Amino acid sequence: MKGQPSRPYELRHRPRSGTAPGTLVAPPGARPPTINVMAYGDDELIERADVSLDEVERLLGRHALVWVDVRGLGDAETIAQLGQLFDLHPLALEDVLNTHQRPKVEHYDESSFIITRLPHLTDEALELEQISLFLADGLVVSVQEQPADCFDPVRTRIRKHAGNRGRLLRADYLAYALLDAVVDSYFPLLEQYAERIEGLEERTVSRPEHAGMLEIQRLKRELLQIRRAIWPQRELFRGLREGEGRLAGDTGLFLRDCEDHVLQIMDLLEIYRERLGTAVDLHVSALSHRMNEVMKVLTIIATLFMPMTVITGIYGMNFDPAVSPWNMPELGWRYGYPFALGLLVGVGALLLFYFRRLGWLGR
Amino acid sequence: MKGQPSRPYELRHRPRSGTAPGTLVAPPGARPPTINVMAYGDDELIERADVSLDEVERLLGRHALVWVDVRGLGDAETIAQLGQLFDLHPLALEDVLNTHQRPKVEHYDESSFIITRLPHLTDEALELEQISLFLADGLVVSVQEQPADCFDPVRTRIRKHAGNRGRLLRADYLAYALLDAVVDSYFPLLEQYAERIEGLEERTVSRPEHAGMLEIQRLKRELLQIRRAIWPQRELFRGLREGEGRLAGDTGLFLRDCEDHVLQIMDLLEIYRERLGTAVDLHVSALSHRMNEVMKVLTIIATLFMPMTVITGIYGMNFDPAVSPWNMPELGWRYGYPFALGLLVGVGALLLFYFRRLGWLGR
Amino acid sequence: MKGQPSRPYELRHRPRSGTAPGTLVAPPGARPPTINVMAYGDDELIERADVSLDEVERLLGRHALVWVDVRGLGDAETIAQLGQLFDLHPLALEDVLNTHQRPKVEHYDESSFIITRLPHLTDEALELEQISLFLADGLVVSVQEQPADCFDPVRTRIRKHAGNRGRLLRADYLAYALLDAVVDSYFPLLEQYAERIEGLEERTVSRPEHAGMLEIQRLKRELLQIRRAIWPQRELFRGLREGEGRLAGDTGLFLRDCEDHVLQIMDLLEIYRERLGTAVDLHVSALSHRMNEVMKVLTIIATLFMPMTVITGIYGMNFDPAVSPWNMPELGWRYGYPFALGLLVGVGALLLFYFRRLGWLGR
Amino acid sequence: MKGQPSRPYELRHRPRSGTAPGTLVAPPGARPPTINVMAYGDDELIERADVSLDEVERLLGRHALVWVDVRGLGDAETIAQLGQLFDLHPLALEDVLNTHQRPKVEHYDESSFIITRLPHLTDEALELEQISLFLADGLVVSVQEQPADCFDPVRTRIRKHAGNRGRLLRADYLAYALLDAVVDSYFPLLEQYAERIEGLEERTVSRPEHAGMLEIQRLKRELLQIRRAIWPQRELFRGLREGEGRLAGDTGLFLRDCEDHVLQIMDLLEIYRERLGTAVDLHVSALSHRMNEVMKVLTIIATLFMPMTVITGIYGMNFDPAVSPWNMPELGWRYGYPFALGLLVGVGALLLFYFRRLGWLGR
Amino acid sequence: MKGQPSRPYELRHRPRSGTAPGTLVAPPGARPPTINVMAYGDDELIERADVSLDEVERLLGRHALVWVDVRGLGDAETIAQLGQLFDLHPLALEDVLNTHQRPKVEHYDESSFIITRLPHLTDEALELEQISLFLADGLVVSVQEQPADCFDPVRTRIRKHAGNRGRLLRADYLAYALLDAVVDSYFPLLEQYAERIEGLEERTVSRPEHAGMLEIQRLKRELLQIRRAIWPQRELFRGLREGEGRLAGDTGLFLRDCEDHVLQIMDLLEIYRERLGTAVDLHVSALSHRMNEVMKVLTIIATLFMPMTVITGIYGMNFDPAVSPWNMPELGWRYGYPFALGLLVGVGALLLFYFRRLGWLGR
Ligand SMILES: [Mg+2]
Ligand SMILES: [Mg+2]
Ligand SMILES: [Mg+2]
Ligand SMILES: [Mg+2]
Ligand SMILES: [Mg+2]
Ligand SMILES: [Mg+2]
Ligand SMILES: [Mg+2]
Ligand SMILES: [Mg+2]
Ligand SMILES: [Mg+2]
Ligand SMILES: [Mg+2]
Ligand SMILES: [Mg+2]
Ligand SMILES: [Mg+2]
Ligand SMILES: [Mg+2]
Ligand SMILES: [Mg+2]
Ligand SMILES: [Mg+2]
Ligand SMILES: [Mg+2]
Ligand SMILES: [Mg+2]
Ligand SMILES: [Mg+2]
Ligand SMILES: [Mg+2]
Ligand SMILES: [Mg+2]
Ligand SMILES: [Mg+2]
Ligand SMILES: [Mg+2]
Ligand SMILES: [Mg+2]
Ligand SMILES: [Mg+2]
Ligand SMILES: [Mg+2]
Ligand SMILES: [Mg+2]
Ligand SMILES: [Mg+2]
Ligand SMILES: [Mg+2]
Ligand SMILES: [Mg+2]
Ligand SMILES: [Mg+2]
Ligand SMILES: [Mg+2]
Repeated sequence: MKGQPSRPYELRHRPRSGTAPGTLVAPPGARPPTINVMAYGDDELIERADVSLDEVERLLGRHALVWVDVRGLGDAETIAQLGQLFDLHPLALEDVLNTHQRPKVEHYDESSFIITRLPHLTDEALELEQISLFLADGLVVSVQEQPADCFDPVRTRIRKHAGNRGRLLRADYLAYALLDAVVDSYFPLLEQYAERIEGLEERTVSRPEHAGMLEIQRLKRELLQIRRAIWPQRELFRGLREGEGRLAGDTGLFLRDCEDHVLQIMDLLEIYRERLGTAVDLHVSALSHRMNEVMKVLTIIATLFMPMTVITGIYGMNFDPAVSPWNMPELGWRYGYPFALGLLVGVGALLLFYFRRLGWLGR
Repeated sequence: MKGQPSRPYELRHRPRSGTAPGTLVAPPGARPPTINVMAYGDDELIERADVSLDEVERLLGRHALVWVDVRGLGDAETIAQLGQLFDLHPLALEDVLNTHQRPKVEHYDESSFIITRLPHLTDEALELEQISLFLADGLVVSVQEQPADCFDPVRTRIRKHAGNRGRLLRADYLAYALLDAVVDSYFPLLEQYAERIEGLEERTVSRPEHAGMLEIQRLKRELLQIRRAIWPQRELFRGLREGEGRLAGDTGLFLRDCEDHVLQIMDLLEIYRERLGTAVDLHVSALSHRMNEVMKVLTIIATLFMPMTVITGIYGMNFDPAVSPWNMPELGWRYGYPFALGLLVGVGALLLFYFRRLGWLGR
Repeated sequence: MKGQPSRPYELRHRPRSGTAPGTLVAPPGARPPTINVMAYGDDELIERADVSLDEVERLLGRHALVWVDVRGLGDAETIAQLGQLFDLHPLALEDVLNTHQRPKVEHYDESSFIITRLPHLTDEALELEQISLFLADGLVVSVQEQPADCFDPVRTRIRKHAGNRGRLLRADYLAYALLDAVVDSYFPLLEQYAERIEGLEERTVSRPEHAGMLEIQRLKRELLQIRRAIWPQRELFRGLREGEGRLAGDTGLFLRDCEDHVLQIMDLLEIYRERLGTAVDLHVSALSHRMNEVMKVLTIIATLFMPMTVITGIYGMNFDPAVSPWNMPELGWRYGYPFALGLLVGVGALLLFYFRRLGWLGR
Repeated sequence: MKGQPSRPYELRHRPRSGTAPGTLVAPPGARPPTINVMAYGDDELIERADVSLDEVERLLGRHALVWVDVRGLGDAETIAQLGQLFDLHPLALEDVLNTHQRPKVEHYDESSFIITRLPHLTDEALELEQISLFLADGLVVSVQEQPADCFDPVRTRIRKHAGNRGRLLRADYLAYALLDAVVDSYFPLLEQYAERIEGLEERTVSRPEHAGMLEIQRLKRELLQIRRAIWPQRELFRGLREGEGRLAGDTGLFLRDCEDHVLQIMDLLEIYRERLGTAVDLHVSALSHRMNEVMKVLTIIATLFMPMTVITGIYGMNFDPAVSPWNMPELGWRYGYPFALGLLVGVGALLLFYFRRLGWLGR
Repeated sequence: MKGQPSRPYELRHRPRSGTAPGTLVAPPGARPPTINVMAYGDDELIERADVSLDEVERLLGRHALVWVDVRGLGDAETIAQLGQLFDLHPLALEDVLNTHQRPKVEHYDESSFIITRLPHLTDEALELEQISLFLADGLVVSVQEQPADCFDPVRTRIRKHAGNRGRLLRADYLAYALLDAVVDSYFPLLEQYAERIEGLEERTVSRPEHAGMLEIQRLKRELLQIRRAIWPQRELFRGLREGEGRLAGDTGLFLRDCEDHVLQIMDLLEIYRERLGTAVDLHVSALSHRMNEVMKVLTIIATLFMPMTVITGIYGMNFDPAVSPWNMPELGWRYGYPFALGLLVGVGALLLFYFRRLGWLGR
């Protein structure tokens, strides 16, 4: 089936079972990583694209905040060096590379580690890209599977507010801004699903085809995937708000706002799931109605023509009128044939009238 | 489909994803805001319709309570000024304009912020208007999407009890009175749904048409919408009662009373959902029974006329009676034809009798 | 539909929305209230039927316990005076008159307020009467919608144990005894439902008619109503046991016993709901089996007679035997006709044999 | 329906509603009670069958442990005396006689009171006998509805370990041993259900008859009964472990072990319920497949013979070949009849070939 | 049914009910136990295969860690000696031999006792082997039902890191590594199920056969078994992390990582269950569509040929044209026969055209 969503991400890129924990293996077919950096204070801003880790190291500690954005997981070595440079836990690094994680937050001694999922709906296939964030003093590291992301509005805000970067100078707020952008990107996705479900419902009513059931099946599966990506995010935001003191100022208020959005998405998903359930009932009902219609046509036809067949059969019998006046005298009547035709038409008309009264005809 | 409820409010008026939090954008097509004020103490009452924010400012602090009622979200600037005047949090203001919020209460330093939803069922479309309340010392601000509301009984009570306004002088009690009016307005709505469901059940029994399934589908969806508007209100009232000391006197008792009503509404919604589920079963069963009836008619017809056809066919065969006395001697009988007709009638009568005994006929 | 339960009590007798809380409006059509009193100590007992509130007032404080039993809600004034006499909260009084409350307990400063529901199954309509209890020092007030109740055994116990009334002298124990009588009255009700469900299951098996589905629907709805009346009672008893010190002695043990009964009722309701669900499956399966039977009859008939029709058709063809020896020589055979009849019978017998082997016949 | 489980025990033996709490009424038709005693210390053991309560009294306090086993509830007086002798609470005694209790534990001042249920599957009817235990210092009282029980292995262990009775000298451990024996007796029962479900599934596949649905219905109901008897037992064991210090030594470990078994039984019940649900789907699907087969046969037959009927009809028409060479020249052909027969056979063969290609034939 | 999973493990190998707790009975048919040992410090490593318990005893206390791996439960005596040697609780030993335990952790005074389940999918039968672990200071004992396991990668890691065994020197970490290997082995299993479900869905669409329903049934049952093996493992890991101080260093972090995997497996199982549910709907819908197709064919055939039969019947009637010019003049027309044939073809063409417009033909 073309356009079918690829297999659930839990089953991809999984290293051989029994591997030592913390073993770093790049997922097969992953792109080579590129590193972009934004390092800024309230007034200055340094942006570098496609830098080496050495360059990154030189920027550290000299700005209020350094945002290291890694795109591509194709080289386990880079990830390992990243871990060394920023002192990240091997289990967290392993999770970065094994892209089948549930969204979560984990607090380590020096940093917090966040995993979330960004939806891409391209060419009718739903992809839920894993995005990892490390969050430490003056540092945010983001690691993406694919270059495309939803962070450009955040970058623009950083660039625009020179001299007045306020909350954006804090690592926790930048992390919030990135997570918020991810959550926000579920809404246009859900709009597309709303339209697909509406279209499906309309088609089910007008023309219940088996393809509709397949579409229902596919939508159910994709909504299930989205649900799996969204539900743990609620816990994520709660975990962040109740985290180990790594939140400063009023970031908690902003996280609560974002949690609101997650709740709204969960609500919508429930509604869509219910609607798909009802669509199955609609489909079955429509099929049943159609079958009823077909059967009525058949019954009407049979009821109409079977008696006629018997009548023509009667006058096709070969009893010999010559032998006795009781034997088919109609055959010798002057209007015998018109009488027989009239009988046929009369029986038919009567039955049609009866069917109309039953409500089977002409509605 | 005419009368179909418009798209769920979560998907409307949503600003571009990635926007900075606290960005105020008026929802497209929203009405320009009008501001009405009631400022009163125990004895005096000043009511002003369609005032400017400057006038509002002049009234502040000179009465026991000032109720500012804003209707229409069409101008983000007004909302922003409102925020400045009353010192409201930008995230709360953003929620006022993004009318896809779940009902909730949020406690800020100086004020509490409440969102609820007021149902309007017009022209068969269900609308759940977002209503926001800010609640501070001596001040209640309500912001509505549309001018129509359910607050007139509250206004009347304020006007009527001059010299004896008691609890109505407290902001928390006025907020309760407004929320109570909102909750109360769900009951007549539910009555309408009860009637629609009863009508549906009756039609399903008398005439199971596919339109019934569509009606079920629509009712399910609307009840789901109401449920989404009501469920969070329970938490809202609990949040208010357990709020940060902003409740005075016995307002808690009144909130508990209101929570009772929310519970009753939730109960009713569950009952309606179950009844709709059973209606689907009823529909399927009715269809099945009807199909059974149609099939019985067909079977009776076929069983009646097929043997007759064979009989007439037999006497229509051309075996030559002249060749042998064994060849269709009936053709030469005196009463051959009446005998054949009798055979037809006899077979038919026998089969009808048999069907009657099977219970397929005449019931 | 005759006997259909009246509309859910949540939607009846509701005052206009937006009314001030504590507004007392008698439900339309309610009976005028009558007041009965039992005032007693360990030795004395004064019983008065149909008294005025003045008389009630004179009895107060002069007996260990006064039980005021009000029947009928037709006069809001009486209820208001009752509130004044016993110092009851207006919100509680409002709930007494608005007979759509869920069972609950509310603790006020001087008294506890309890609402429960007593089932009446009359003339096939299920009614769940609201009963309100106020419980204070030396005082129990019960308010009923209808005169009929289940309290006579309690009255008998009071009368019988003169000189030895023990626990019955305490308001909390009397309240327990009344609640226990209410809970006990659900069991005979459930027995009736058990019998109706059993009857339904048997009929479904022997004769699956659409009426069965309607009965299922009705039973489901009524069980749902009972469930709504029972579930909150569990919380009620828990609330009473954990109440604010208004329980004396071992009343807690008795309340626990009563809670047990509520649990048993909830269990039974779950079982009945499951059985009704299975009954739907049974019904659908029975319909399907019947349809199968009808279709088999049709198929057997068609298969039997259609080949016969073809055979008689063949020998009814008019090919001219005179033209060529190849043209229908059978027509001129001595035993042509018996041969043709034999062919018909033979084909029929063969097919019947085949159907028997398929298991479609003779079972 | 023979073998149908008797009515749920909640609805049996219930005293008139409104009875005073603690009223002791023997269930109608109950057997007269017999009392057996085992009184033992580490070395001595006294066993008495069918003793009077006076004899029991004489044994008390002279042995480390006295186990009084009462079988039969036919005499309320005996139960009352038992209560007096051992100082048991009237509410507990009432529960002993009203055999519709859920399994539970209740801690009273001097004793703990336990109710559990022992399954008997006889003659295809499932019975869940109520067994009550009282547990005090040096005393265990068990009360059974019927003489048959599952305690013989415990009795054997007591007899066998003279001089080394260890834990069996403690009342709490003996109570555990009895409860463990009850829980263990659910496993062979579940094995029987596993076999019945497997048999059912196999029959559904080979021959979907309506009896299968009835069997499903019955199994569902019985599993529901077992579930109701088992679920509260989990709480029972938790209640015992967290009880008010009546447990000594390591009895807690043993109770945990027993709780494990309850969990395993609950798991199995869930699995069986799911399998029965799937069996319904299987049944419906099998019916549908069969109907499809029947319909195919009908359609094949009709499609095969109807065209033949038309062909024979054509050559049975009476157009006069003498009038014009255009009128049915076939009738005068030398091979007219063989040609017609060939046409019939040819049309039939063609259609059969077509059906085979459709996959409707010969599979 | 070949390949059918054997009966749920809860019902196997269960000792006679009522047995004394702690009774050790080897499961019937179990293999005789073999004991392998790995004893190691940071530098040294002693590996012994198939040793006696005496040899094991000699190794104890002389290495940082001793891992005793027992394979086979065929000899209760060995297990009993094991218990004596390592001071294990009889209830735990009993659980080792009764291989129907749910995964769990139990903390005893000197040791922790863990049960988990390792999946084997061989020859289409799913087996969930019980694996027991005892965990004490410097000691890990693992007991398996069958020799095959998933621990080889752990053994390799022990062998490889001589001089640098770090965490592997701690009993808690080794236990974690073994549990992690078990959890990891569920993922390839789930991949196989994912493929079977996909195959099933495809077949359902192309060819809905009853075998598909049987496959659904089997998959549902096996997923249920896996679910029962996995769900308690979450509690297991939580129990381990919150255990009684037996965890050292950062083992908690690793256990949290493993818990993540359990959550992922649970997520996948839910998805598969939902997909199987949808597959049932698909199957029913496909059957319904097919039935619709068959019925349409039948109806088309009947509608096409029945009117033709009547027409041929008409011209097969024997009215005598000689008697009157009204009697079947067509029989004497020059083009009578072609006219009749044309009528037949015309009626057929008309009906085919009509069916095409209805959308029943040619699509
Ligand atoms: Mg690993
Ligand atoms: Mg992983
Ligand atoms: Mg990306
Ligand atoms: Mg957002
Ligand atoms: Mg917001
Ligand atoms: Mg469904
Ligand atoms: Mg935003
Ligand atoms: Mg928003
Ligand atoms: Mg409005
Ligand atoms: Mg209200
Ligand atoms: Mg109220
Ligand atoms: Mg259903
Ligand atoms: Mg009100
Ligand atoms: Mg009310
Ligand atoms: Mg009453
Ligand atoms: Mg009771
Ligand atoms: Mg009781
Ligand atoms: Mg439940
Ligand atoms: Mg009672
Ligand atoms: Mg009782
Ligand atoms: Mg017994
Ligand atoms: Mg046991
Ligand atoms: Mg155990
Ligand atoms: Mg189902
Ligand atoms: Mg045992
Ligand atoms: Mg065991
Ligand atoms: Mg193994
Ligand atoms: Mg792992
Ligand atoms: Mg991990
Ligand atoms: Mg679940
Ligand atoms: Mg779930």
